[in-house]
Amino acid sequence: MQTAAAVADFRTYPLISDLAEVQVHNDHLSVQWADGRVSPFHHQWLRDNCPCPSCVYSVTREQVLEIVDVDEHLTAVSARIDQGLLTVEWSGGHHSQYDPGWLRAHAYDDESRAERRAAKPKSRLWDRSFELPVFDYAALMEDPKALLHWLLALRDSGLTQVRGVPTEPGSLALIAKRISFIRESNFGVLFNVQSKADADSNAYTAFNLPLHSDLPTRELQPGLQFLHCLVNDADGGESIFVDGFAIARALRDEDPEAFRALCEIPVEFRNKDRHSDYRRLAPIIALDALGEVAEIRMANFLRGPFEAPAEQMPLLYRAYRRFIAMTREERFRLVKRLNPGELWCFDNRRTLHARNAFDPASGARHFQGCYIDRDELLSRILVLQR
Amino acid sequence: MQTAAAVADFRTYPLISDLAEVQVHNDHLSVQWADGRVSPFHHQWLRDNCPCPSCVYSVTREQVLEIVDVDEHLTAVSARIDQGLLTVEWSGGHHSQYDPGWLRAHAYDDESRAERRAAKPKSRLWDRSFELPVFDYAALMEDPKALLHWLLALRDSGLTQVRGVPTEPGSLALIAKRISFIRESNFGVLFNVQSKADADSNAYTAFNLPLHSDLPTRELQPGLQFLHCLVNDADGGESIFVDGFAIARALRDEDPEAFRALCEIPVEFRNKDRHSDYRRLAPIIALDALGEVAEIRMANFLRGPFEAPAEQMPLLYRAYRRFIAMTREERFRLVKRLNPGELWCFDNRRTLHARNAFDPASGARHFQGCYIDRDELLSRILVLQR
Repeated sequence: MQTAAAVADFRTYPLISDLAEVQVHNDHLSVQWADGRVSPFHHQWLRDNCPCPSCVYSVTREQVLEIVDVDEHLTAVSARIDQGLLTVEWSGGHHSQYDPGWLRAHAYDDESRAERRAAKPKSRLWDRSFELPVFDYAALMEDPKALLHWLLALRDSGLTQVRGVPTEPGSLALIAKRISFIRESNFGVLFNVQSKADADSNAYTAFNLPLHSDLPTRELQPGLQFLHCLVNDADGGESIFVDGFAIARALRDEDPEAFRALCEIPVEFRNKDRHSDYRRLAPIIALDALGEVAEIRMANFLRGPFEAPAEQMPLLYRAYRRFIAMTREERFRLVKRLNPGELWCFDNRRTLHARNAFDPASGARHFQGCYIDRDELLSRILVLQR
Repeated sequence: MQTAAAVADFRTYPLISDLAEVQVHNDHLSVQWADGRVSPFHHQWLRDNCPCPSCVYSVTREQVLEIVDVDEHLTAVSARIDQGLLTVEWSGGHHSQYDPGWLRAHAYDDESRAERRAAKPKSRLWDRSFELPVFDYAALMEDPKALLHWLLALRDSGLTQVRGVPTEPGSLALIAKRISFIRESNFGVLFNVQSKADADSNAYTAFNLPLHSDLPTRELQPGLQFLHCLVNDADGGESIFVDGFAIARALRDEDPEAFRALCEIPVEFRNKDRHSDYRRLAPIIALDALGEVAEIRMANFLRGPFEAPAEQMPLLYRAYRRFIAMTREERFRLVKRLNPGELWCFDNRRTLHARNAFDPASGARHFQGCYIDRDELLSRILVLQR
């Protein structure tokens, strides 16, 4: 029989396995689970994670204890399994109880850590044969399950389309706020993509735009980008997408030296007008702590002159040319015209986007766009999954 | 005599040295300057940076050429110095001219690169004897020079105070917008720091808050934090600041193993309530590409359980305890009570802040806060310096 101990979290932790046995060692406890797994828990770690009301404020579930206020030579006077809970008496007098579901979810033996790593969501790479996930506006606005389904597609594939969106200017904000607040930039909260005589970016011309990420000039590129079609009567202007992670994977396989150059040699991106002057030095491909591709930073029209050591310059040009050439290969490219009432929502740090040139004399073309960060996407997914 | 060539930028580039001589080599030109410096410029690099109106759109000053559309075996048919400009005829027929001020500012010989690196702004570390830079609200609102002076203090020292701010709620937004737009978070655009019964963070209680950065739970912690005092009649609640970069430097000197552990072992920060669930795994100390400390991520009350391999756990606890113990040492701490009409503005990713507990029964206490990113600070400085 289980008696739930407090947990410093709003999540719930299912019981995976009962606690079977506990042994006290010099600086840690060794816990054996009913399914045979053995997990060490250091005294400092357990004391640090005591969920009692004097260590964690019950309203916010945030810690008030600071571990530095506990003796660094703290030991467990006794440790036992009591009504299913791990129960510890500490030297100095404090007493802690741990829920076995919570404890298993945070165990840091090698097996538990490998298990959690394996359970992390993985990117599903795509190419020209990608079956574009399409979602219905009305369902997303009403049904939390449809919303979750959309957000998981964004997280894992990085490109989606929504149909049935009202075509009044500003409608985009309604669906964006189903995820969270919008991330403002120097282009505003919602930006209008139209051809303008006094353009402050090539995006606001009728030129073709090569495959790029938006705002590579910032330390953190926006996570999600929305592009909502209000009017599209002009000839041309088709949207083009490639999976930047798929291209990076192919480059890694086909030319590992070029791949490494784009991971290691930083490049400056610049976005400058009369009122702002953004500059950011960063590599084109960023890897996460496990060496997986986590981000592509690329916009040829916003790139500054390369500033690598002279001996690296030929390799950097070879790698950069190769990457751009790959973004132009048919095998990777998805080309679609967006109609009024439709919107693209994609991972701006993964899915590069482009636009064919259009003819502003042939008819009106008006898109609105906005950004939301990956943090908001992942938070919303976790809340919907509770 | 100089004839200015077009430049793909809104900056101007002073003439540091005239061009003296140019030689054509296999894949690059070798330029000798009047002051004796020699700079190689690869053909690909020069062609890529051609500033002519068919390569750069003159309205946005953004590149329309993509280097992949140029022959990768391109060579210079001729290169000469013509009316002070570097003038190149390319195989295939294109013709480019380069302003010598621009060219020197982007030269990538070792000497030029070292010179630019040495000219980059450096953090000025501080301790308890820091002479707090104080600025006057009215001057910042009217005088671009006073504004620049304030922003440079923020960039280089990371802690400033502004006095003479109106005490009407919302006034904070007026001065924040002298820099740029405000960065919204799940706590809103402006957040109210008051003790609340239904607190969704320990910040919104009357507890003491240990030294921390705000929103370590996000991929990018906010760059600048503003805290504006409207009312402060409660006993207690003094503000405490430490220079996190100075503590990191001291830790590196006094216990390099602990320093490395905090740079290398990622820690999860969590901020969770009924509507959001932010989680971010990152090391407490982040270094830049040159190995300099670039960011501190620290808030004990938002930290999740450590999840390192068991053999690293004792070192991680030793390092974490040591860092927190150092934030409590008098040598680093600046303690000041903020009065109505005063505000703190500090680099949230460098300057850790804390609050003593206060007694809500003794009087009212109301602060408002907001965030702006480092990108906006640096952009505004560059525009003011033009």
